[in-house]
Amino acid sequence: MRAATIVEVPSAEQTPGHTPARVLQIVEHPDLVPSAGELLIRVCAAGLNNADRMQILGFYPAPPGSPPDIPGLELAGQVIGVGTDVFRFKVGDKVMAVVGGGALAELAVVHERTAMPVPATMSWEAAGGFPEAFTTAHDALVTQCALTSGERVCVHGAAGGVGVAAVQIAASMGATVVATVRDPAIRPMVEGLAPGRITAVNPANFTEHGPFDVILELVGASNLAANIASLNLGGRISIIGVGGGGSKTEIDLLALMGRRATIHGSTLRSRPLEQKADAARRVETQVLPHIRSGLVSVPVIAAFSLDEVVQAYERFSAGAKFGKIVVTM
Amino acid sequence: MRAATIVEVPSAEQTPGHTPARVLQIVEHPDLVPSAGELLIRVCAAGLNNADRMQILGFYPAPPGSPPDIPGLELAGQVIGVGTDVFRFKVGDKVMAVVGGGALAELAVVHERTAMPVPATMSWEAAGGFPEAFTTAHDALVTQCALTSGERVCVHGAAGGVGVAAVQIAASMGATVVATVRDPAIRPMVEGLAPGRITAVNPANFTEHGPFDVILELVGASNLAANIASLNLGGRISIIGVGGGGSKTEIDLLALMGRRATIHGSTLRSRPLEQKADAARRVETQVLPHIRSGLVSVPVIAAFSLDEVVQAYERFSAGAKFGKIVVTM
Repeated sequence: MRAATIVEVPSAEQTPGHTPARVLQIVEHPDLVPSAGELLIRVCAAGLNNADRMQILGFYPAPPGSPPDIPGLELAGQVIGVGTDVFRFKVGDKVMAVVGGGALAELAVVHERTAMPVPATMSWEAAGGFPEAFTTAHDALVTQCALTSGERVCVHGAAGGVGVAAVQIAASMGATVVATVRDPAIRPMVEGLAPGRITAVNPANFTEHGPFDVILELVGASNLAANIASLNLGGRISIIGVGGGGSKTEIDLLALMGRRATIHGSTLRSRPLEQKADAARRVETQVLPHIRSGLVSVPVIAAFSLDEVVQAYERFSAGAKFGKIVVTM
Repeated sequence: MRAATIVEVPSAEQTPGHTPARVLQIVEHPDLVPSAGELLIRVCAAGLNNADRMQILGFYPAPPGSPPDIPGLELAGQVIGVGTDVFRFKVGDKVMAVVGGGALAELAVVHERTAMPVPATMSWEAAGGFPEAFTTAHDALVTQCALTSGERVCVHGAAGGVGVAAVQIAASMGATVVATVRDPAIRPMVEGLAPGRITAVNPANFTEHGPFDVILELVGASNLAANIASLNLGGRISIIGVGGGGSKTEIDLLALMGRRATIHGSTLRSRPLEQKADAARRVETQVLPHIRSGLVSVPVIAAFSLDEVVQAYERFSAGAKFGKIVVTM
């Protein structure tokens, strides 16, 4: 099978301790064989995520059991083989799943408990950009922060892949959503994901739109003090990304105590099978019905072929995007 | 009724903006009358807590509905009158309760839903020091942090009133307890609260005894980085005091994400009736049986009369104590 592969290129200057440059190339790998409980999938589309980009840059190695050199954390495709003890799917089924790596390839194996069916109304592009973004958002908002109907939520960085998932999940369950979006041109697009339920605002002024019961932090440490200050009593903050805002900042524990507030830090990628399977079941029962009804969708801003994977990541890194960038195989 | 009362004494120098000195005096107040759902209690004993001490110093005003000038957050006594719509208790019953203030008085009124029965085996001194300390510890460990049997918990500042409650609650439910205690002479006393289940250690070395599933922080910000670094995957930190360790510190959000960790900030005092009643019910069903069986106890290091209340707070502030200091009426 062909796969986007991280290849280390020795640098011209062989300074000791110098990190070799890493590039993405399309490389031929041995075909995969499904083990017990696993599906062999011909990948049709795979979404890009920030964790892949970090991995390619050398910062975020794949967890044990995942291909160390093939990026890609989410995929959609057709089942073309099954191992023993597979009960949920059969050859020919359309499935999508979160994986620890390896999505940017022609073939992938996933445990059937982590796979979800692709609704008939969903394109391959949309399905390829769904699992990681929507599972991350649902896990953070609902499983970690126990968001409920009637609450007010702030989603930082709402135009990105996880952001567009989070605002729609929150709106679909009856929460009122404030979405911070840097680019004024993109704010109407974010609001259009659930007209009347989402207010897209300038990140510099988000505290004026609080207080919030739940805050989803995709940007990083720079917002922490303002986040805590704009929480309702009993408010919860989920931190699932430190993209542009750095990782370290000052925290005032008295401010946290005074609001009886909670801060969750979370990542999906390194979780064990049972937790990924549990997260997939929750998305299947709580989000997929809204995909089927058309209430929730996956905005895909651009699709690239596997041979254009380098350009795909360049587009991903360029910012000013609304929704997902996917690679189709 | 007579009550310990915070009295502002004009300072000799009348500098503008100068905070008047505050002293505790025994002052006569009008007797109290129970409203619907309330019990009138002849207070027999009331425990001291750090929040009272802060209130006397002018830092922590009483919440609305509590006497603003009478300190004391927990009490035990005899029901001597009831309002309408009282169903759980009757005149003559022995009860104990968390209050927002006003415990250091001969009389108090509490809503019956926040009151718990005093087990027959419990002295007035022990009962007076039980409600705030044990409810705070149980709420933080069990309700906020979902501590379960088999987990490993670290209790910082374990020799104090909340600390001795926390280590016993954790041990009684099958957790393994590491207790940080500054004074080496007090460590054996803390371990003696649940022999074989508690290891009392030097606070400087607590990380060597991890990793922990739950950490109860009573000391403050100075421990935060080490707390996060010594958490297990999915670990939880509850911050319920910033006594000696300050309130502000640096936090590394990537470290929090990597452990999929949670930080809860909490206070009990300012909660509304329904939350205080809910917390009382949980303590009643999950801790009082262990008081009755003798598994859990309230170590009282010193009891003072109401007339000695100033000396009681001096002893409280002096540190190097094991368990509770109470005032008996």
